[in-house]
Amino acid sequence: MKDEIDLIKIREEILLLVRPTDAEKMKLETVRQQIIADIVKIAKLQGQFEIIPISVGSAERNTWLHGNHDIDIFISYPEELTFEEFHEKSRKLLAEMAKTGDSWEDRHSEHPYIHIQKEGFEVDLVPCFRVKSGAEIKSAVDRTPFHCTFIKENIGGLEEDVLILKQFMKGIGVYGSEVRTGGFSGYLTEILTIYYGGFENVLRNAAEWKARTVIDLAKHQTLNHEHPLVVVDPTDPKRNVAAALSLTKFSTFIDRARSFLKNPNKDYFTKKEYPPLSEKKYAELMEMRGTKMVGISFKTPQEAEDTLYPQLFRFEKSMEELLVRNEFTVLNTFSWSDETESIIFIEMTETELPPLQKRVGPPVWNESNAESFCKKYKNKKETFSFSIEEDRYVAEIPRKYRTAEQLITDMIFKEAALGRHVRDSVKEGYTLMRENDIRKIQNIEFWKFMNEKLTAQIEP
Amino acid sequence: MKDEIDLIKIREEILLLVRPTDAEKMKLETVRQQIIADIVKIAKLQGQFEIIPISVGSAERNTWLHGNHDIDIFISYPEELTFEEFHEKSRKLLAEMAKTGDSWEDRHSEHPYIHIQKEGFEVDLVPCFRVKSGAEIKSAVDRTPFHCTFIKENIGGLEEDVLILKQFMKGIGVYGSEVRTGGFSGYLTEILTIYYGGFENVLRNAAEWKARTVIDLAKHQTLNHEHPLVVVDPTDPKRNVAAALSLTKFSTFIDRARSFLKNPNKDYFTKKEYPPLSEKKYAELMEMRGTKMVGISFKTPQEAEDTLYPQLFRFEKSMEELLVRNEFTVLNTFSWSDETESIIFIEMTETELPPLQKRVGPPVWNESNAESFCKKYKNKKETFSFSIEEDRYVAEIPRKYRTAEQLITDMIFKEAALGRHVRDSVKEGYTLMRENDIRKIQNIEFWKFMNEKLTAQIEP
Repeated sequence: MKDEIDLIKIREEILLLVRPTDAEKMKLETVRQQIIADIVKIAKLQGQFEIIPISVGSAERNTWLHGNHDIDIFISYPEELTFEEFHEKSRKLLAEMAKTGDSWEDRHSEHPYIHIQKEGFEVDLVPCFRVKSGAEIKSAVDRTPFHCTFIKENIGGLEEDVLILKQFMKGIGVYGSEVRTGGFSGYLTEILTIYYGGFENVLRNAAEWKARTVIDLAKHQTLNHEHPLVVVDPTDPKRNVAAALSLTKFSTFIDRARSFLKNPNKDYFTKKEYPPLSEKKYAELMEMRGTKMVGISFKTPQEAEDTLYPQLFRFEKSMEELLVRNEFTVLNTFSWSDETESIIFIEMTETELPPLQKRVGPPVWNESNAESFCKKYKNKKETFSFSIEEDRYVAEIPRKYRTAEQLITDMIFKEAALGRHVRDSVKEGYTLMRENDIRKIQNIEFWKFMNEKLTAQIEP
Repeated sequence: MKDEIDLIKIREEILLLVRPTDAEKMKLETVRQQIIADIVKIAKLQGQFEIIPISVGSAERNTWLHGNHDIDIFISYPEELTFEEFHEKSRKLLAEMAKTGDSWEDRHSEHPYIHIQKEGFEVDLVPCFRVKSGAEIKSAVDRTPFHCTFIKENIGGLEEDVLILKQFMKGIGVYGSEVRTGGFSGYLTEILTIYYGGFENVLRNAAEWKARTVIDLAKHQTLNHEHPLVVVDPTDPKRNVAAALSLTKFSTFIDRARSFLKNPNKDYFTKKEYPPLSEKKYAELMEMRGTKMVGISFKTPQEAEDTLYPQLFRFEKSMEELLVRNEFTVLNTFSWSDETESIIFIEMTETELPPLQKRVGPPVWNESNAESFCKKYKNKKETFSFSIEEDRYVAEIPRKYRTAEQLITDMIFKEAALGRHVRDSVKEGYTLMRENDIRKIQNIEFWKFMNEKLTAQIEP
């Protein structure tokens, strides 16, 4: 009973903070109408009578948070257009639209798309095909208008619950589906709110989630994914809305939901800030840990974050695997990146191993493998010992890489090859950083990041 | 073809070495007859008319090696006797028999049994019950006469093959079923020779063995053991003749059989000798390996080897597990023991770990375990960090045991408790030996043993 009252009170307090004001709403509405009018006007001038502007995004569905100034407008073209026609026409239109912003940026990768800033709003203008359903898309973005329609038709009064859930997720650090975060997207948050019926019910159910939880709103029963959470897209049965959600963020949400329900508290809605570490404090921390930190620094490839981060993560992972394969004990790895510099960090128990390595070979009854193992190590001058332990051949041999630094130096190009842009940058040049080099990094954001990595605490 | 000739030649050469001479045979036969006559005479004098002496062992079945001076005589009593009567009568008889030897030793544990030395022979005198079959024994030793009979009835001309096989096993270090060796017993060697039909055929088949090979001579199909090799005892369907064979010795035999058949060679029949390591050579070896050796030395409990060694091995294993559980990297462990001193050795990559330990907890959805893990580590002053990685809680905490020595000192009594005699001895006092202490050991046998452990080579 008290908990119920607590929850209601917290709800009201959070809503006061996250609900957009009437002035905000009016401002956004005005800018949005202006942009749509501009699109229609320019299209007509260019003889493009077939386009239809579609307002999508959280603003359109009343699930946007106070202070958020994003406007997403899709410009739909008839499905029948060839890609060539589509590209030609849409680029021409976007080129004129760019001039209507206070500033603009061409963000197209394979798909044409521009971002403009206009009267304080961040506006995405994205051309798409007007397809029949979310399951029959022609380009990756064609699904978005269907998402928007689905939410508008089904949200039925739960808009404020979405606002509270989004703010809760921001507070605990699991909101945002970009690769760097690996958290919950806005659409996923809305689907969960609809499915479970409100903020508290999402939390109550999430507290009971296990890996491979499946949520199938439209009863498609089509998905058998390996993802931690499977939420079948009601507009496209083949798609998992939660595909980008990492296991860590999924698990964090479960833990925080359970903890919040036990002791509801406004603190959950504010992201914990880690102050920057000073050089001295960092040195002290590392002294206390007694571990060894190595950094691999290189120029940040000039790519979108969602292109860059998967490559950083793969590089980080491959460095960890390389070190573990060579018997170094890796405690933690993480990737830092800003506009100019990217650094992969690896924290180890030690960076030097003894000259002797014990290599366990195949079982004696695996004759062909046994033969090549024996050929490689048996009766060699440099072999310390060669024996049989239980069912295996065992060779004690000189270790090839005694230090992590030597190993990384020798193998980095092979391992970095996993991502094209990172590989090219590393090939241009990299620096192997030890404690002393790391300490000299001058970047407040970096030292906040490092503080969080070294002293993370789940709170409250 | 050449291989066949090689094999025949080697056979002949080895037989010349291992076949007992006629003089040897006659000598043994004389002593054996004398002992049996003594038993019958003394029994009669004591009014024990129901005993029957039974000659068992390899001498009886013509499968004894030149230079082997063992005689095994069982003294069988009627099955109907109570254990009390059996003990009383047999002890009385053995007491008199002891006097017929040049020297004697009471070796009884639960079972009465004496060992005498007589005219250069090592004689075991073992009382037993005269039961109906090997499957209906009253005491553990009652099976032996059936083994002897079975071999005598089935060996049919393969006696010399047994000799060669035994010598081969001695040469490669897998002969002997005592716990310390964990190799092939004489009876097992004979059964294999009968089953496969001769020395070369045993090797040809063993070269193809895999773990859990089953040999069921008498088609009992009764055994489903976890042992590497299962040889159903033809005289007792419930018994695995190869129960004492370790996986290491089983695998060694497979490897050596395969290797010998590829390139037959007399060297296989001579056990490789490792010369004793000098203090200087040991220091050099350890310097080259760059690893850390720790020894735990204590007084050898005055027990039979087959009682002592299982306890030593269990202690060794428990020390390894203790260290591994506490994140030390154990490369090798081994047990040394002579009449006065026993030492457990543990070779590690390092004996000191950093102050920080990373502890991976339960998955977030395992609520009760999660709760106790969080309670233990979350929001504690001494916790470095507490976070979620993938589906697990992870705490970075101060390490309890930073050095192997401290860990061993604190935990040794708990771990040594696995074997009564070793535990009692360790409790009386033990010494933790480091490199410098180990170097000071004055014992040639020890330094041969250490040389074998550190520089073992499977040859040829």
